[in-house]
Amino acid sequence: MSVGKQVYLFREGNAEMKKLLGGKGANLAEMTRIDLPVPPGFIVTTEACNNYYSQGETLSEEVRNEIGDALAELEKQTGKMLGDGENPLLLSVRSGAYYSMPGMMDTILNLGLNDKTVEALATASGDRAFALDCYRRLLQMYGDVVLKIEHDTFEGVFDEIRKALNIPLGERLTADGLETLVEKYKKIIHDKSGNDFPQDPLRQLLDSIAAVFASWNNHRAIVYRRLNNIPDDLGTAVNIQAMVFGNLGEGCGSGVAFTRNPSTGEKKLYGEFLFNAQGEDVVAGIRTPLPFTELEAKYPDIYHEFERICGVLENHYHDMQDIEFTFEKEKLYILQTRNGKRTAAAAVKIAVDMVSEGVSTKNEALLRVDPAQLTQLLHQGIDPSLTIKPVATGLPASPGAAVGKVVFDADIAERRGQEGEKIILVRSETTPDDIHGIVTSQGVLTSRGGMTSHAAVVARGMGKPCVSGCESLKIDAEGKTFHLGGQTVKEGETISIDGTTGNIYLQEVPLVPPQLSEEFSQLLSWADEVRRLGVRTNADNPEDAKKAREFGAEGVGLCRTEHMFMEQDRLPIVQEMILADSLEKRKMALDKLLPIQQGDFEGILRAMAGNPVTIRLLDPPLHEFLPNPEELLVEVTLLKERGNDKAALREREELLEKVGSHREFNPMMGHRGCRLGLIFPEIYRMQVRAVSQAVAALKKEGLEVFAEIMIPLVGHFNELERMRRIAAEEIEDVSRETGVELSLPIGTMVELPRACITADQIARYADFFSFGTNDLTQMTFGYSRDDAEGKFLPFYVKDEILPANPFAILDREGVGSLVAMAVRLGRESKPSLKLGICGEHGGEPSSIEFCHEVGLDYVSCSPFRVPVARLAAAQAAITEKDQ
Amino acid sequence: MSVGKQVYLFREGNAEMKKLLGGKGANLAEMTRIDLPVPPGFIVTTEACNNYYSQGETLSEEVRNEIGDALAELEKQTGKMLGDGENPLLLSVRSGAYYSMPGMMDTILNLGLNDKTVEALATASGDRAFALDCYRRLLQMYGDVVLKIEHDTFEGVFDEIRKALNIPLGERLTADGLETLVEKYKKIIHDKSGNDFPQDPLRQLLDSIAAVFASWNNHRAIVYRRLNNIPDDLGTAVNIQAMVFGNLGEGCGSGVAFTRNPSTGEKKLYGEFLFNAQGEDVVAGIRTPLPFTELEAKYPDIYHEFERICGVLENHYHDMQDIEFTFEKEKLYILQTRNGKRTAAAAVKIAVDMVSEGVSTKNEALLRVDPAQLTQLLHQGIDPSLTIKPVATGLPASPGAAVGKVVFDADIAERRGQEGEKIILVRSETTPDDIHGIVTSQGVLTSRGGMTSHAAVVARGMGKPCVSGCESLKIDAEGKTFHLGGQTVKEGETISIDGTTGNIYLQEVPLVPPQLSEEFSQLLSWADEVRRLGVRTNADNPEDAKKAREFGAEGVGLCRTEHMFMEQDRLPIVQEMILADSLEKRKMALDKLLPIQQGDFEGILRAMAGNPVTIRLLDPPLHEFLPNPEELLVEVTLLKERGNDKAALREREELLEKVGSHREFNPMMGHRGCRLGLIFPEIYRMQVRAVSQAVAALKKEGLEVFAEIMIPLVGHFNELERMRRIAAEEIEDVSRETGVELSLPIGTMVELPRACITADQIARYADFFSFGTNDLTQMTFGYSRDDAEGKFLPFYVKDEILPANPFAILDREGVGSLVAMAVRLGRESKPSLKLGICGEHGGEPSSIEFCHEVGLDYVSCSPFRVPVARLAAAQAAITEKDQ
Repeated sequence: MSVGKQVYLFREGNAEMKKLLGGKGANLAEMTRIDLPVPPGFIVTTEACNNYYSQGETLSEEVRNEIGDALAELEKQTGKMLGDGENPLLLSVRSGAYYSMPGMMDTILNLGLNDKTVEALATASGDRAFALDCYRRLLQMYGDVVLKIEHDTFEGVFDEIRKALNIPLGERLTADGLETLVEKYKKIIHDKSGNDFPQDPLRQLLDSIAAVFASWNNHRAIVYRRLNNIPDDLGTAVNIQAMVFGNLGEGCGSGVAFTRNPSTGEKKLYGEFLFNAQGEDVVAGIRTPLPFTELEAKYPDIYHEFERICGVLENHYHDMQDIEFTFEKEKLYILQTRNGKRTAAAAVKIAVDMVSEGVSTKNEALLRVDPAQLTQLLHQGIDPSLTIKPVATGLPASPGAAVGKVVFDADIAERRGQEGEKIILVRSETTPDDIHGIVTSQGVLTSRGGMTSHAAVVARGMGKPCVSGCESLKIDAEGKTFHLGGQTVKEGETISIDGTTGNIYLQEVPLVPPQLSEEFSQLLSWADEVRRLGVRTNADNPEDAKKAREFGAEGVGLCRTEHMFMEQDRLPIVQEMILADSLEKRKMALDKLLPIQQGDFEGILRAMAGNPVTIRLLDPPLHEFLPNPEELLVEVTLLKERGNDKAALREREELLEKVGSHREFNPMMGHRGCRLGLIFPEIYRMQVRAVSQAVAALKKEGLEVFAEIMIPLVGHFNELERMRRIAAEEIEDVSRETGVELSLPIGTMVELPRACITADQIARYADFFSFGTNDLTQMTFGYSRDDAEGKFLPFYVKDEILPANPFAILDREGVGSLVAMAVRLGRESKPSLKLGICGEHGGEPSSIEFCHEVGLDYVSCSPFRVPVARLAAAQAAITEKDQ
Repeated sequence: MSVGKQVYLFREGNAEMKKLLGGKGANLAEMTRIDLPVPPGFIVTTEACNNYYSQGETLSEEVRNEIGDALAELEKQTGKMLGDGENPLLLSVRSGAYYSMPGMMDTILNLGLNDKTVEALATASGDRAFALDCYRRLLQMYGDVVLKIEHDTFEGVFDEIRKALNIPLGERLTADGLETLVEKYKKIIHDKSGNDFPQDPLRQLLDSIAAVFASWNNHRAIVYRRLNNIPDDLGTAVNIQAMVFGNLGEGCGSGVAFTRNPSTGEKKLYGEFLFNAQGEDVVAGIRTPLPFTELEAKYPDIYHEFERICGVLENHYHDMQDIEFTFEKEKLYILQTRNGKRTAAAAVKIAVDMVSEGVSTKNEALLRVDPAQLTQLLHQGIDPSLTIKPVATGLPASPGAAVGKVVFDADIAERRGQEGEKIILVRSETTPDDIHGIVTSQGVLTSRGGMTSHAAVVARGMGKPCVSGCESLKIDAEGKTFHLGGQTVKEGETISIDGTTGNIYLQEVPLVPPQLSEEFSQLLSWADEVRRLGVRTNADNPEDAKKAREFGAEGVGLCRTEHMFMEQDRLPIVQEMILADSLEKRKMALDKLLPIQQGDFEGILRAMAGNPVTIRLLDPPLHEFLPNPEELLVEVTLLKERGNDKAALREREELLEKVGSHREFNPMMGHRGCRLGLIFPEIYRMQVRAVSQAVAALKKEGLEVFAEIMIPLVGHFNELERMRRIAAEEIEDVSRETGVELSLPIGTMVELPRACITADQIARYADFFSFGTNDLTQMTFGYSRDDAEGKFLPFYVKDEILPANPFAILDREGVGSLVAMAVRLGRESKPSLKLGICGEHGGEPSSIEFCHEVGLDYVSCSPFRVPVARLAAAQAAITEKDQ
C-alpha cells in the first residue's frame, strides 16, 4: 500500500484540507497561510490515524520519520529545541477531527517538560512555581491520556497536599508543594504503569500522538459520533503546536472574542480577557474577565492588532468568528478561530449585514442561518438569559411561551379569561367541549396526548402555546390541584409553559416578544429568489390563512374541515348528523351544516384569494365528535344507582349505546377518511357542494379563487375513482345551478403505504398528490403517534434505537423510500401530477431538503413554519446547485 | 387489419380452443371430434365478438359470409334447410365465453320458425300446439333479446289469455289460445319496434348473433366479470346448433347426470330425467324427475348408450362430468358436458379413485380438489342439506359448527359445562377472564371484535367454533337475554352457530361429523411429494401442536407466548408483573413466571420433537392482560356514591389509575412487540431463558428439539440488533449453566411496512424472517382489522371497492409487493436467510400460491388449515411447472 504524506506543517496546509487535517488543523494552517500570528506547528493527518488503526494501533516507521522531520522544522522556526536544557521547546498535542467533537477526545499540554527542562522553564519564566505547575499538569495528563491511570488517583494526592498546606481550591500550590506533588505523580506513574515517566520528550510526543489517535475510539467519542451521525472511518488528526503562555506575568494574557455581538448581531467586537491567564481561566469563571476597553487602555497596540486580525478573519471566512487569543510578553497569538454561535436574531442580522458590506454573497447569507432557529423570532419566547431550570418537560406541541394562572375547567377559563386574567388551561386531555376555554387562555398544558392530540392541533391552529403529554403531571381536577415534580399547584397559581421546548415552570418567568426585523424580510426575499419548492400553509380558518400569507405562504396546502365541525355552534348539529338513524335525518342535519361550511370556505378562500386552497374532506373517525363515553358511563351508573330519574336514565343509556357503537379499538386505522365518504357519500357531497358554492359566490364577486378538493386516506384506486365521480357530480350541479364555470382539481392525500406502492393506479384518478407524512409515518413504522410519543419513542431516541423522532424529522430510509416510490410511480403514470406535502415534516428543514431532492412541487406547513420552509427550501436549492 | 377465420364448424374445433370458441363451444367441438352424438352446429368466435365491438357493433361482411357458409354446411349435415316449408332447420343460438358466466348473457331457441315453417313443424311433429308454443317462445325471446322489449309486456298478454281460457300456470295453452298469443306477440313486436317480426330466418339468425355479442356488455355481465375478475376484452363466442326436441311425444325425453355421485364420490351414474320434456323441465321442479332405472327399463338401448358415453367423457376429460342429454324419437343427443361440482368428500374420493383407475395422473388429482373445501372435512359441520335460513351472520372467526344453550357468563358456562351441558357462550366480547368459560363451551358468539379478537384467537387455538363481531346482536347481560333478528333469546335456550360461515340459528340444527378418509390421506401424501413449500402450524400449546402434526405439519411456525400468559393461573402473576412499580418487583413476578413458561415450552417442543418450533416473544400491549377499565370505572363510581368503604375505594381508584396509564389510543400501533422487549428487557430475558432451559432439559432427555426465537414487530434494524444481543446473552448463560450446547436461531417477524422496505438492513441480524401478514395488511392498508371487519370492509367487498377481504386473501398488489421487496432485499443481504409466513394467509390457497411464487421456504397456519396448505402448496408447484 502506498502511503501519502502523513504530516503537514501548518504552512503547508489550508482551509480546504479539513478532511485530511481536521477542522482545527485546517484553520490553523489557513491562518498561518494568510500570515496571522499563529504559534507554529504541524499536523499528523486523519489518514495517519486510519493507518494507525490498520497497523494494529501502532505508529509506522514512515510516520515517525515524518514527525521527526516536522519537529526539526518546528525547532528551526521557533529557535527552541525539544528537551533543551536552556531554551526548551514545549508543545501542545490536541485532537482535531473533520467535525468538531468538543471534549470527546484527548489533549496533552506542556509536552517536552522533564526533570531537566522544567528547570530551564523556571529560569526562563522567572517563576519556579509556574514551571513546576506546568510539569505536574503534563504528568497528570500523560498519566491519564497515555497510561489510562484513573484521574482520581492524581486528584486525591493533589487534594492531600493542598489541604496539608492549607491552600484554597483554585489557587496555585507553592513551589515546595508542587515539588512534592511532582515527585508523588512520578511515583504514581511508576507504580501504576510499571515504568517511569519518560524523560525523553520525543518519546512523550510519540506516545501522546498515539494516545490521541486511540481516543478516537474511546466510548464517549463513539457515542458522540453515533448521536451526530459522524462516520467512524473519518479518523482524527493531531495538532502539534508550540506552547505559548498567557500566564507568564506582566505583558501576558488570554481572551476570547466574537467579531460581532452574538445576541444582537451588532457589528462590534464582543468579548473579554484576563491579564496573566490562560484561555481556560477566562471561561472558568473563577476570576471575572475584563472588557476590551481595559486591554485597549493598557496595550493599545495589542488591542488594535487583534481588532485588525478579527476583520481579516471575518472577511476571510465570510462569517462572524469566535476567536481565542493569547499574548505572551506583549506578543499576540491567535490560537483558534471558528464560526461563532449566535441567536436567531443575530444570525439573520449578521447574514444580511455581511451582504450589504460586500463580505458575503446572498447564497452564503442564506446558508448561514439555521432555518429551525427562525421560529424563535416569530413567537413570544422565554427570555434566553433565564437560568431557572424547568420542573418538567412535556411535548413541544405548539410553539411560543405563555405565563398564566392555572385553571382546570374550560368554563372557568372562559369566564376568567374574558375578565382579562391570563390563564393556562390544564387538562388531562382536551376535547371539542374545551375549545371556548382554549380561546380565552394564554396556553394549554395536558398530561396525555401527543403532538397530534386535540389540544396540540387546536392550539397550533390558534397560534397558542401548548405543552402536551406531560406524563408526570398528575391532575386532580375535582380537588383543583395538580402535582408535578414533587410540588402541588392550586387553581389560580401562576405557572409558565414553553411550547417550543416543552418546558414547564411552576412560577412566572420573563418573556421576550417576537423579533421580526427588516433583515428578516430581506433574507426571506432572497430565499424566494432561489428556491424551487413552493411554500403553502396548513390553515383551517381565515385568521391562520392571513397570518401565513403575511409570512409568505403561496396558498393553503391543507385546510382540514373537521376543526370547523368542532366549533361549539356546529357540534350539536354534527352530533345530530352522526347519530341520525336514517339517511333522511342525516341529510336534514347536513342541510343545516351546508351554509355554515360554505361560509367557512368563503372565509378562507377570500383570505387566500389569488392562491390555491386545498380542502381536505372530513377525515377523523366520527366518534371524535361525540360525547366522552366514560363520562356517560359514570352518569348512567349514577342514574341507575339513584333510581330517581328513569327518563334521564333511558335517554343517557341510549346515547351511551350509540356512542359505544361508534367506538373503535384503533380509531387511527378505523372508519375514517374516504371510508366515511364511501359509506356516507352524503357527507362528502355536502362538503363538495359547500366548496363549490363558495367558489361560485366569490367568483361572482369578481375574486380569483382556486379551491382544490382533497380526498383523504385513499389506499386503493377504486376509492378515489368513486369519490372523484361523486365530487365531480356535485361540482357540475353547482356549476349548472349558479351559472359559474367551475373547474376544481380533485386529488388525494397519500398517507398509506399501499397508496405509495400503487401510486401509478391512483394517479390515474388524481390531479394532485399531497403526502400526509404524519399518517404515513404512523403506518410505515406501525406507531400510533399519540401513544408512541408518550411511551416508547423518547426512550428510542435517547437510547439511539432511532436517529431521531420520525414524526419530527422524516425517516428517509423507510417513509422517504415510500414517498420516492409514489413520486416515481405517480409521475410515470401521469406526468402532469402536482405533488406536495402537508404533513408536519413540510415545516422541518431536513425533511424539506428531502422534499426538494425527491422533486415535490411544494411543501405546506403551519403558518409559523412558513418562513422556516422558505429558507430551508432555498438552502436545498443552493446546496443542490453546489454539488 | 387481416382477420382470421371467425366461424368454426363443431367438427373443426377441439377442447384446447376455449379461448377462441368459448368453453361451451370448445366442449361441443371436442365431443363432435370424438364422435359423440352432438346435434351439429358451428361457433362464431370470441374474436368475431371483439371485431363486432371494434366495428361499431356491427357484423362485418366477412363474418356474415362465413356464417352463410357454415349454415350451408349445417343444412347439408342435417338434410334440413333454414326456412324450408317442408323440413325446416331450427336453431338454438347461445352465448359461450371462456369463463362460464351462467345466466349472464342471452339465448334464443327455435330460431328459424316463421309463419310458414311453424306449419311444417306442426305437421312434422303431429302436434300443432307444440309447434305454436315453439313459435311464441321464439317471438318472446327475439323481442326480449334483440329488440329489448320488456319481458313483462309479453308475460302480461300471456297471463290474460291463460286466465281467459282458464288454464293453470305451468300448463301449455291450447292450440287456439297459442294462435291468438302468436298474433298478439307479433303485434307487440310491431308496435314496440316499428317493424314486423322478420320472417326471413337468416335475418333472425344474424340479429340474434349480434344480440348475443351485445349481451357481453349488458350491465349484469359487466358486474359479474368485475366480481369474478374476468377481463372485459375476452369477448363471448356464439354457438349455433341444430335444435333437438325432447318434448316431441313418445320416444322423447331429457335428463341430466353426474358420472359419479357428487355427494359421496361413489362411482355410479347419478342423475334423473323426464319423458317428453326439455332440459329446463327437469330442473324446474314442476314435474318430478325419474330415476335412471326407469329409462333403462323402457329404453335400454338409449340408457346403455348414455352410460357408455358417460364413460367416454370421463375418460376423455379425466374428471367427473356433469352432462345434459336429450333423446328425440329414440335418438340420443349430448347437449353439454362440463366438470361436475361436488362436495369436498366427493372431490377427494373421485380424485384418488381416478388415479387408481388409471384415468388421471396424481398431478391431475391434486389439481381437481379445491383446497379451501378441505376444511369442511376436518370439522363438525352443519348438515349441508339444511334448508333453514340463518337469522343473522357474523364473522366466521373459528371454523366448525356448534349447538348449545345460551349462557352469558363465563363462570356459569364453566359450571354448567362441567355438569355436561352443551353451552354456547354469548358475550359482547371476551377477555382473558372468560377463558375458563370458553374451555367448557361448545362455541363462542360475540357481538364485537373481529377475526383477531380475543374470542376468535382463543377459540381457534382451542379448535372451538366461534362467530364474532355480529353487530346486530344486542346483548342484555344483566337481563340474561339477547335480541337478534327481531327475536329475544333467554339464557338456557338453544342456538346453533357455524364458525365456518358465520351463520347463526336460533334453534338446534343437525350437525355432521368430520369426514376424514383413506383417500384424504392418500391425496395429501401425493401433495407432499410435489410441493416445494414447507408447511408448519401456528400452535400455542401441545394439544394444537399434536393435532397439527396429525394433519401433517412439519414444525411450528408461530408459537405465541401471550396466550400462555392469559391462562387463569398465570394472569394474576402477569398482572403483578405489569403493575410492578419497580424493576425489582417486576423481576420477582418474572421469576415466578419463568418455571411456568419453561413448562409451556417443554410441552410444545416435546410435541413437535424433531421439528423446528418458532417461539415469538411477548407481542400484545400489556394492558390486554389487565382488568377492564370500564368495569373498574363503574365500581369506583359506585363506591364513591355509596361512600361506605373508603379502603376499597382507594384500592380500586389506584388500580383504575394504573390500568388507565396503560391504556392506549391505538393499541395496535402502541407499546407492543419488541418495543416491550426494549423497554422491559427483563421480560424478554425471562422468555428466552425459559426457552433455553426447556431445550436444555429436553436435550438431556435425549430428545431432538429445535427452538427458534422470534422477535416481533421490528421496524428498524437497531431494534433487532439489540434484542438479538440480549437473547444471545441469555442463551449463552443457560448453555454455560446447563452444560448443554445450545444454538437457537434468532429471527424476526416481518409485519411492518418499514421492515419490508429496510429488509436488507434487518436481515443482517436475522437468521430468519417470518412474514406476519395480518399486521402487515393492517399497516399497509391502514385498517384496524377489528374495526374494519365490523364496519366498512363488508361494504367495501360487497360494493367491489376491494376485490376481496385482504385479511382473507393476500393483497398481491399492495401487501404482496412489500413481501416481494422484503424477500429480494433480505436474500440479497443474506442468501442463507430462511423465509416463512405465519399470518393467516399461510392457510389460504391463493395466498399460498403467492408464497410459492415469491420464493418463501414455508407457510405456517392454524392446525386445521395444514391439509389445505399442503394441497395448495402442491397445486402451486404443479401449476408453476406447467407454465
